[in-house]
Amino acid sequence: MNSFGRLFKVQIFGESHGESVGIVIDGIPAGLILSAEDLLPDLERRKGGRQKGTTPRQEADFPIFKSGLFNGKTTGFPIAIFFENNNTRSEDYNKQRSIPRPGHADWVAHQKFGGHEDYRGGGHFSARLTTGLVAAGAIAKKLMPDLTIEATVTEIGGETDLERGLQKAIDAKDSVGGIVECKVNGVPVGLGEPYFDSIESVLGHMLFAIPAVKGVEFGAGFGAAKMFGSQHNDAIENMQGSTVTNYAGGIVGGITNGNELVFRIAIKPTSSTPKEQFSLNWDTEQMEHFSIKGRHDLCVALRAPVIVESVTAIVLADFFLLEQKIKKII
Amino acid sequence: MNSFGRLFKVQIFGESHGESVGIVIDGIPAGLILSAEDLLPDLERRKGGRQKGTTPRQEADFPIFKSGLFNGKTTGFPIAIFFENNNTRSEDYNKQRSIPRPGHADWVAHQKFGGHEDYRGGGHFSARLTTGLVAAGAIAKKLMPDLTIEATVTEIGGETDLERGLQKAIDAKDSVGGIVECKVNGVPVGLGEPYFDSIESVLGHMLFAIPAVKGVEFGAGFGAAKMFGSQHNDAIENMQGSTVTNYAGGIVGGITNGNELVFRIAIKPTSSTPKEQFSLNWDTEQMEHFSIKGRHDLCVALRAPVIVESVTAIVLADFFLLEQKIKKII
Amino acid sequence: MNSFGRLFKVQIFGESHGESVGIVIDGIPAGLILSAEDLLPDLERRKGGRQKGTTPRQEADFPIFKSGLFNGKTTGFPIAIFFENNNTRSEDYNKQRSIPRPGHADWVAHQKFGGHEDYRGGGHFSARLTTGLVAAGAIAKKLMPDLTIEATVTEIGGETDLERGLQKAIDAKDSVGGIVECKVNGVPVGLGEPYFDSIESVLGHMLFAIPAVKGVEFGAGFGAAKMFGSQHNDAIENMQGSTVTNYAGGIVGGITNGNELVFRIAIKPTSSTPKEQFSLNWDTEQMEHFSIKGRHDLCVALRAPVIVESVTAIVLADFFLLEQKIKKII
Amino acid sequence: MNSFGRLFKVQIFGESHGESVGIVIDGIPAGLILSAEDLLPDLERRKGGRQKGTTPRQEADFPIFKSGLFNGKTTGFPIAIFFENNNTRSEDYNKQRSIPRPGHADWVAHQKFGGHEDYRGGGHFSARLTTGLVAAGAIAKKLMPDLTIEATVTEIGGETDLERGLQKAIDAKDSVGGIVECKVNGVPVGLGEPYFDSIESVLGHMLFAIPAVKGVEFGAGFGAAKMFGSQHNDAIENMQGSTVTNYAGGIVGGITNGNELVFRIAIKPTSSTPKEQFSLNWDTEQMEHFSIKGRHDLCVALRAPVIVESVTAIVLADFFLLEQKIKKII
Repeated sequence: MNSFGRLFKVQIFGESHGESVGIVIDGIPAGLILSAEDLLPDLERRKGGRQKGTTPRQEADFPIFKSGLFNGKTTGFPIAIFFENNNTRSEDYNKQRSIPRPGHADWVAHQKFGGHEDYRGGGHFSARLTTGLVAAGAIAKKLMPDLTIEATVTEIGGETDLERGLQKAIDAKDSVGGIVECKVNGVPVGLGEPYFDSIESVLGHMLFAIPAVKGVEFGAGFGAAKMFGSQHNDAIENMQGSTVTNYAGGIVGGITNGNELVFRIAIKPTSSTPKEQFSLNWDTEQMEHFSIKGRHDLCVALRAPVIVESVTAIVLADFFLLEQKIKKII
Repeated sequence: MNSFGRLFKVQIFGESHGESVGIVIDGIPAGLILSAEDLLPDLERRKGGRQKGTTPRQEADFPIFKSGLFNGKTTGFPIAIFFENNNTRSEDYNKQRSIPRPGHADWVAHQKFGGHEDYRGGGHFSARLTTGLVAAGAIAKKLMPDLTIEATVTEIGGETDLERGLQKAIDAKDSVGGIVECKVNGVPVGLGEPYFDSIESVLGHMLFAIPAVKGVEFGAGFGAAKMFGSQHNDAIENMQGSTVTNYAGGIVGGITNGNELVFRIAIKPTSSTPKEQFSLNWDTEQMEHFSIKGRHDLCVALRAPVIVESVTAIVLADFFLLEQKIKKII
Repeated sequence: MNSFGRLFKVQIFGESHGESVGIVIDGIPAGLILSAEDLLPDLERRKGGRQKGTTPRQEADFPIFKSGLFNGKTTGFPIAIFFENNNTRSEDYNKQRSIPRPGHADWVAHQKFGGHEDYRGGGHFSARLTTGLVAAGAIAKKLMPDLTIEATVTEIGGETDLERGLQKAIDAKDSVGGIVECKVNGVPVGLGEPYFDSIESVLGHMLFAIPAVKGVEFGAGFGAAKMFGSQHNDAIENMQGSTVTNYAGGIVGGITNGNELVFRIAIKPTSSTPKEQFSLNWDTEQMEHFSIKGRHDLCVALRAPVIVESVTAIVLADFFLLEQKIKKII
Repeated sequence: MNSFGRLFKVQIFGESHGESVGIVIDGIPAGLILSAEDLLPDLERRKGGRQKGTTPRQEADFPIFKSGLFNGKTTGFPIAIFFENNNTRSEDYNKQRSIPRPGHADWVAHQKFGGHEDYRGGGHFSARLTTGLVAAGAIAKKLMPDLTIEATVTEIGGETDLERGLQKAIDAKDSVGGIVECKVNGVPVGLGEPYFDSIESVLGHMLFAIPAVKGVEFGAGFGAAKMFGSQHNDAIENMQGSTVTNYAGGIVGGITNGNELVFRIAIKPTSSTPKEQFSLNWDTEQMEHFSIKGRHDLCVALRAPVIVESVTAIVLADFFLLEQKIKKII
């Protein structure tokens, strides 16, 4: 299913080369001042074509509100937003149809949906669907004005010097992966539960929903596996719960402890590498060489930070509502 | 909330030093032959006290079925199982009450539940709650006889020679973290969806629900972030969808591709290290040195494999039912 | 929240006088041939202005598909459908703003949403939102071609002669209530569960979601309360489970028994009666006489049958999927 | 599935003649003083054998708490409660196995669960499962001390003189149905939503989950279908929202308006009538005369009021939490 959340809930829809993509956001309290302008900065950050290494496909990505606003404020009912798809070049995809692109969902989608899937531009699998998530995230951020959520690319192709990582890809005429780190400040103590509703579980769920994410870690993460307990344990140093270190990434027992929330995601290299590949042709049933056409990001990690921030905001808004940190009107 | 699943659903309850821990499992189709004996091997694997580096606390961990079985078969209604807590030494915890143990949930629980939480042995935060998950996992495994799910500890304290890693901890009189890897064979093509119901999302959700897990990665995982696309892409080599490599870990676009499912989790060092620590005393509001008493695992990763297998089975049983891979009777 | 369903799921949005109303339908299996034409007959039946006693407001109600269709078939991903609101006369509502209309949600909405609700034409409370439900119902019907679902008005203003009931209202210059009965044939045995997922529970949930419904009864319903057990019990007469009588309305223990599904709903009189009323003016804090302007149905029950059929189809499609009566592709 | 609720959630389990029945209640805020004694008065009311016309089967029905309490207060984690089944006479049921009892779920359960269902005493279909609901309801009531919820039998076998209705059944040696009415005072304005989360929808869902309920109506209910709008509309008479009449039963647009909540349910006659019946023998495939043995209620409506109150309290506690009317600790 394509919905997520308990009290702050999103339902996505759309295909990359269909008529539109969009989202319905349910659970936004009434009375929040909101307009398309509030969404534009984050939507702009998500766009391709703005920086070296990203797709030249350019969409206006202007959010068209279809419901839930009245007199410039939220009404307490669902907000439906859609984004038109104008700048599509589907013919690129028809040509390649007989060879399921390695790393892409072509083959599994064909099997699962019996050939009925919209394969153009990845259809519903496309990262274009994250447009809606970014819109929802911008609204969620507005609901929690005391939070600062900041995600940055910290590594490209194994290099922390990002220019160098990207140049490596350009030189190799290949795509590369990367790491995005996110830090959240101003998080109240007490969000989350042990077990299934732990912050790691619910946030991990949403982070893995972002296309191309293959790893998620909180605090010291995989590094923690190499540490001693006496090193990893964060000593509490005052009655506010501040800790001397923050190897836990701000989450203990699944619950926020008021320290900075820190986590990282691993993003695989863009599947659509410009490099020639060797794969199956399902018409001829033979392996063959082929190249991917279309306009693609060399490193999707470059466009990921705002998406990471957005899903983080969506998840936290849900926890804020669950813990009654956002007041309802009566 | 303490439940998870859509069609195969678990609801956990209990506290480490309360009367019992247990689980209610809903959605098991009728007619499955089942008895306590089917659960014992996995429950035995979960127990402490069986190997060097695990807690000497020993519980019988015998599953007491309270509902859902009739004439040795499942009825199609919920199975409630509980496990008695007998071997508890709560006085160990009362003494330490004024110092929230670093790495543990003591401080956040106290804040979140206003001092009403059952703090003895970690209460509901305790890994003892995983007993129920192991019981549910054993049932889920029986529903999918063609699957093999196998998790192993691949690293302790940064060492792949596990004896050496454990000895390092013993020598340092400290606890250590570790890595558990899980491989699943026999997975049908087509489980999962892009976005929120991706295999990575739902399985990641459950893996992060296991206490002490701070990182989850699928296939090449964080390693993928350092790769080129032409390396990471798994070329399909035949009409069954077998791939030449398996950097994707058997999941593309959130959907299983029929290849081996591979993922790893990072487990932090046991918070209850034998080493002296420095932390806050909330009565005196001063930092002070203290040591943790009680019986604890030096490396919880050692007990994790069967838990990882169990939550994997629970998640896959849910997807099997969603995709109608387990037949209902009429 | 404004979503419903487990495997066949609907999310509604929109306001009566906002830009649009619509629905996102998730869980439709891939490969169903579908076009706007399939929805038009039922949408036409829902419209006002077609018969005596219904609102003269006329909307084109043409379903605009925004996603989920490709080459004339469903893709297995969410279908988003919008209906534009063109024929609105909001000024009617601004004038009456200070007097919360009796029977309407004006007063509760004002309290609950702090004055931020879109009050024009009832906003999100409007029965115009049922347009989306009718669209979803038409799709659900297509998924279950062997079912026949037929709802009819059986009583208006206490009269089974419907012409007479309506004339009573016209003569009294007042609105009237009515009864709608629905019969479903071709239902397989075994849908539903005892307790929370009983057919009565889930269908009752959806029937009460239709604006103006104040009663729901299955089979003999309230009449059963006056019967003896020996009368009410439906004797099974053959190995197919056919019963001699059908006082249970085709549901026993919450589960369909293969006999005709029969239920009725009570619809209150249209709140917007043309008659002068006496109510509170919240500006003056005084009771006063006033009359409702706007275009309204004299008897909303007349437009209800297709809505009842639609929500029934939505609920049954969900149960069909749960019981694997609709095959997924692989 | 056998769970219900969003923030206040119940999961039931058990069979009439199995080892136990019970419930897990999740979402209870921490710090509520609670003991078995709080539950006993309502559990006592639910019991049979206390009044003329109810089953002579007597169970101690003592609630055994298995989790979620510490030092006499709720911990904020799930409360599991078991009730032992001691007073069972299953041999009564084995004898009648070949004739599915009319009005009971025997035949549908046999079809749906392939003969694996626990048929003794109705198994999971049994009203004995309501024991857990009554326990949960008593806890829910404690969370909302300002509410008064009161259900009464208003009609038996068509008679409002209840003694006379019962005597009619005794004279006829037959079972009878009845009507239960419930009134709730102290309900805050603003619980519920239009459409799927309307009070009528969610409460109707739960009321129809009670075994034997075949009709639910709010306020004037089916009577509303015979009324004019000018009669049915409840004029608001003051700034607190009090209405002159209460035909809406305290719910407008799916939302509570602060007036008394009023609704009624229709309960069918006990299926286990003492009278001889004519039905199918599935071994001989012939119709034959037979009589039901076992200990049964002549009129189950007599035991229903406390169950109706309980499910009402469960539903309202959920809405109270959703609307932040019950404060969480931090």
